[in-house]
Amino acid sequence: MSFLDRIHDPSDLKRCSREELPAVAEEVRRRIIDVCSRTGGHIGAGLGVVELTVALHYVFDTPTDQVVWDVGHQGYPHKVLTGRNAQLETLRQEGGVSGFLKRTESPYDAFGAGHAATSISAALGIAAGRDVMGDQYKVVAIIGDGSLTSGLAYEALNNAGHSDRDIIVILNDNEMSIAPNVGAMSKYLTQVQRNPIYNRIRSKIGELIEKNHAIETLVRKWEESVKSFLTPGVLFEELGFRYFGPIDGHDMGQLVETLGAVRAMTGPRLVHVVTQKGRGFPAGEHGEKWHALPPGHDPATGKVLKASTANPAYTAVFGRGLSELMDEDPRVVTITAAMPSGTGTGVVAKNHPARFFDVGIAEGHAVTFAAGMATRGVRPVAAIYSTFLQRAYDNIVHDVAIQNLPVTFCMDRAGLVGEDGETHMGLYDIAYMLAVPNVVVSAPKDGTEMLALLKTGVRHDGPFALRYPRDAAPDVVGLMREIAPLAIGSWEVLQKGREVAILAVGTMVQPSLQAAATLANEGLHVTVVNARFLKPYDEAMLQVLMAEHQVLLVVEEGTVINGFGAFMASVVERLDPSVRVIAHGVPDRIIYAASRARQLAACGLDAAGIAERVRAVHGSEAIAG
Amino acid sequence: MSFLDRIHDPSDLKRCSREELPAVAEEVRRRIIDVCSRTGGHIGAGLGVVELTVALHYVFDTPTDQVVWDVGHQGYPHKVLTGRNAQLETLRQEGGVSGFLKRTESPYDAFGAGHAATSISAALGIAAGRDVMGDQYKVVAIIGDGSLTSGLAYEALNNAGHSDRDIIVILNDNEMSIAPNVGAMSKYLTQVQRNPIYNRIRSKIGELIEKNHAIETLVRKWEESVKSFLTPGVLFEELGFRYFGPIDGHDMGQLVETLGAVRAMTGPRLVHVVTQKGRGFPAGEHGEKWHALPPGHDPATGKVLKASTANPAYTAVFGRGLSELMDEDPRVVTITAAMPSGTGTGVVAKNHPARFFDVGIAEGHAVTFAAGMATRGVRPVAAIYSTFLQRAYDNIVHDVAIQNLPVTFCMDRAGLVGEDGETHMGLYDIAYMLAVPNVVVSAPKDGTEMLALLKTGVRHDGPFALRYPRDAAPDVVGLMREIAPLAIGSWEVLQKGREVAILAVGTMVQPSLQAAATLANEGLHVTVVNARFLKPYDEAMLQVLMAEHQVLLVVEEGTVINGFGAFMASVVERLDPSVRVIAHGVPDRIIYAASRARQLAACGLDAAGIAERVRAVHGSEAIAG
Repeated sequence: MSFLDRIHDPSDLKRCSREELPAVAEEVRRRIIDVCSRTGGHIGAGLGVVELTVALHYVFDTPTDQVVWDVGHQGYPHKVLTGRNAQLETLRQEGGVSGFLKRTESPYDAFGAGHAATSISAALGIAAGRDVMGDQYKVVAIIGDGSLTSGLAYEALNNAGHSDRDIIVILNDNEMSIAPNVGAMSKYLTQVQRNPIYNRIRSKIGELIEKNHAIETLVRKWEESVKSFLTPGVLFEELGFRYFGPIDGHDMGQLVETLGAVRAMTGPRLVHVVTQKGRGFPAGEHGEKWHALPPGHDPATGKVLKASTANPAYTAVFGRGLSELMDEDPRVVTITAAMPSGTGTGVVAKNHPARFFDVGIAEGHAVTFAAGMATRGVRPVAAIYSTFLQRAYDNIVHDVAIQNLPVTFCMDRAGLVGEDGETHMGLYDIAYMLAVPNVVVSAPKDGTEMLALLKTGVRHDGPFALRYPRDAAPDVVGLMREIAPLAIGSWEVLQKGREVAILAVGTMVQPSLQAAATLANEGLHVTVVNARFLKPYDEAMLQVLMAEHQVLLVVEEGTVINGFGAFMASVVERLDPSVRVIAHGVPDRIIYAASRARQLAACGLDAAGIAERVRAVHGSEAIAG
Repeated sequence: MSFLDRIHDPSDLKRCSREELPAVAEEVRRRIIDVCSRTGGHIGAGLGVVELTVALHYVFDTPTDQVVWDVGHQGYPHKVLTGRNAQLETLRQEGGVSGFLKRTESPYDAFGAGHAATSISAALGIAAGRDVMGDQYKVVAIIGDGSLTSGLAYEALNNAGHSDRDIIVILNDNEMSIAPNVGAMSKYLTQVQRNPIYNRIRSKIGELIEKNHAIETLVRKWEESVKSFLTPGVLFEELGFRYFGPIDGHDMGQLVETLGAVRAMTGPRLVHVVTQKGRGFPAGEHGEKWHALPPGHDPATGKVLKASTANPAYTAVFGRGLSELMDEDPRVVTITAAMPSGTGTGVVAKNHPARFFDVGIAEGHAVTFAAGMATRGVRPVAAIYSTFLQRAYDNIVHDVAIQNLPVTFCMDRAGLVGEDGETHMGLYDIAYMLAVPNVVVSAPKDGTEMLALLKTGVRHDGPFALRYPRDAAPDVVGLMREIAPLAIGSWEVLQKGREVAILAVGTMVQPSLQAAATLANEGLHVTVVNARFLKPYDEAMLQVLMAEHQVLLVVEEGTVINGFGAFMASVVERLDPSVRVIAHGVPDRIIYAASRARQLAACGLDAAGIAERVRAVHGSEAIAG
């Protein structure tokens, strides 16, 4: 590790000669492969931009110049070069280096990231802020070709191209986002890449034009016409960017030269860099499967050295059940926003390709598209992570709920998401979904109930949402055809006690039962209810519970502000003010990366925490009463 | 009205000869100008597409063929031709014809609309649903050039262009959305329009190519090259659409011919139609000012015949105050998403053009752009309607709140919005904002307090939101420099009573005071609190209120599910279960168009409704106690 031992920040990198840079890059690449074999992580994206990262920090004056990475998955080489090499072993661990970009972690992280396609917007904002303040520095946004399927990237490109602002966009084109890309933009980029002849002709014409400086106006007019004929990046030129490329993202000389030349210019400019995702890691060059790796794998092959959890994940159970549901119901179609594997729907794509729609990283479109389909007699299932569905909130309200269309929202990664940390938390879906009229909101206690709710959802003549966690399903799940749908709004009493009833939502059912067992040993017998429907709730059962208990403790894996607990509190206040409702959920603050188990415990959402809360409210009730 | 008397639906229109169509269009245009002079409405957009609408219903087999209008403002001629001419006089009135498209209103309204840029997504979904079901019909989306600044439109174009699906997009290009357009796409379209020579050359080359059928392969290759040189719509061609145009949107012959030819084809195709917004209405041809008209104006000039409300609207007070704030604080910048007039910030654009940013119909980008700016020492104020800010929910969470950046969200049109109806309701912002950590959520009781909160917001080192209604401010508002900021989290007791305390949010303060006066006459003396901060709330004052009252009635102009009332209920349940908290807000159902006053009364959110609710809870409390 001769170079990395002396590169503590980019100023050390700048002391290297140009000829040494490829060797620096190689060290960075080896280091990441080595560390990730122990820590796990999103390895593919970072390995693709090692040379680009070295070149950026070599050419630009970071951290004065602002480099805005998109998503953050590509941030590992950037972290290695900006003072975080030693800590890289703590990647994605509690208190360790974040798996994404983070302003509080380093002055070199100009803007935090986690979700795709924010970088151009943020960079344009930074550039505008610079200009308002009268400052002088360069602003660079890096964006992957996958993120170009997102409308946010387009909104920003459109705004930037019009602005004449000094901003550089680097298109990191690796022909795949997480899954191989879809969409016309992707096709377009492929076509552009395959036409290097354009660049040669263009440069020759450029030479000719330069020689004819005398008849400038005419030539410029002609140049404009010729440019749109010959430039591979005509689409970006039309959007107001000066286009450079495509260049080989693993050719350090070309990168340094091009970035140096582009840095010296002004106005909106786009550098098209072609990279190979997972470069240097044999198993990493094949796309989605190696987008992220679990901890503990062989660095040479990517093969996982030890098995993971015993039960299959909710995600896997969901995908299998959905595919089976589509076997029996030809109306059901599946929509994903660039996450066939992440949402477990890869099996649907395989079994039912004609009824499977991957629309790209375009959650808003995914939902309105689903609404359109729903008007034609089909039953769309939109499988989108809770955190990403935030991007489609208006589409949920405006296109689905107001028109009361039968779209089923399957919100994976709801609740605490572990190592992905704050940007990926699924903590707001209960609050934002409950507020929307016409939407049935539900959460299953296990994998079997998830499939039962899925079946209930696609048969319901209106919007339906179910949320489930990034975790293993606690049960063994049978075949979809043997699972019956549920009565909408029905709860389930799992254990009868007195004084205190726990209304447990989804993932909180199991730890609540464990807490109840602990409390029973202490002589405190509590009721445990599986509140699988949040809206509508089980009015009849709520009446019974109110009659038989003094306290209802609502336990949910979502923000405590305006979750199901607050909803129940306001309902019970109206019905019977003598019954106390205590909301027990995730506190109203940002939750950072740690294992999911640690996050649950820290929020008091494990069995011990729930038992503790029951004791506290039971005690205070006794005092108050 | 010879034609309209016999056109009851498009089948009657189809019995007209082609030569009669311009006269039909002229009647439709006159009818709309006449009706809107009495009803008011969004007249400009509809007048621009009269010929296009006639041609569409003439050429296509509606309602079997699915025509999806964007936004809905352009829907008036469509309504006239699809059986709603007689009812047009009820436009935008309670129980009358909606100002937008609505599936429940007519089978000809294939998809509801209200917000911009949903049409291509919805149409693509309809087309996909058609194909899944094995049906045969055509699907047409109409979209304005302004909506092309929205990422949602791009996501859908990108997805459609890739899909090879049978779908027609009509680009209604009138060079302005609501305000004149911004962005590179707008520049691009202008340039396209100004190059009719391209079309002539292109058709000549086409002729030549046809004659040389023998050497097809070579010619086709050449054609592709030439096309990208000569086609004005190269950008759409690159996105996978076959491009037709630009054609004159007021030339009926050209419209019918082109649409007829395009209908007969398959695959994704885009027809670029150039129209003039407000065509035929002198005052309507000038853009944003006549985007919408109030009821009661001179049909010839657009001049309003009677004055509107006495006090200026919150919107106007806001714009003036913000501009004054920018006079005194050079860090403050303003961001709007294509609504300089709607948000009252036109005055800012005039007074502080270098610190005013109109990013187009791109709310998501607006917020991330603001976050980027906020990292550089400026203080962005994002002025966006409550209903449109739903489009930026993830940007609020991911880019602003997690990074705790000082962006001030000014949510205009919060609450019940009157005649715009269900698509424009600002009923969810309290619920969706309260759930997000780090955001201060507030609502002013009058115009002066709005400016005080605005000043508080831009001085606060974190995210800050304030909401205000589509209504006149109830007070006379002085100069910004004389208005002091407020202590964050402070409430204000406006009137002291006992037993019941009303916690009134924003617009509900005035009617609560009126209700209190009525109740005082009945011998019931209630406390009225201006709960101007929703989060953080005034903990000290809440303690005092709990000590001195048995019931807290939370009155808010937002959904009753998980609004401020639910939040307070869960807080008070924890602190003192003997105090009852009743949430009084908008019921959990879709609220349709009516006057704002009628909507407030229907929800029990006027003085009479609030008094009634106080009596009810006071009575039940007496019984319960």
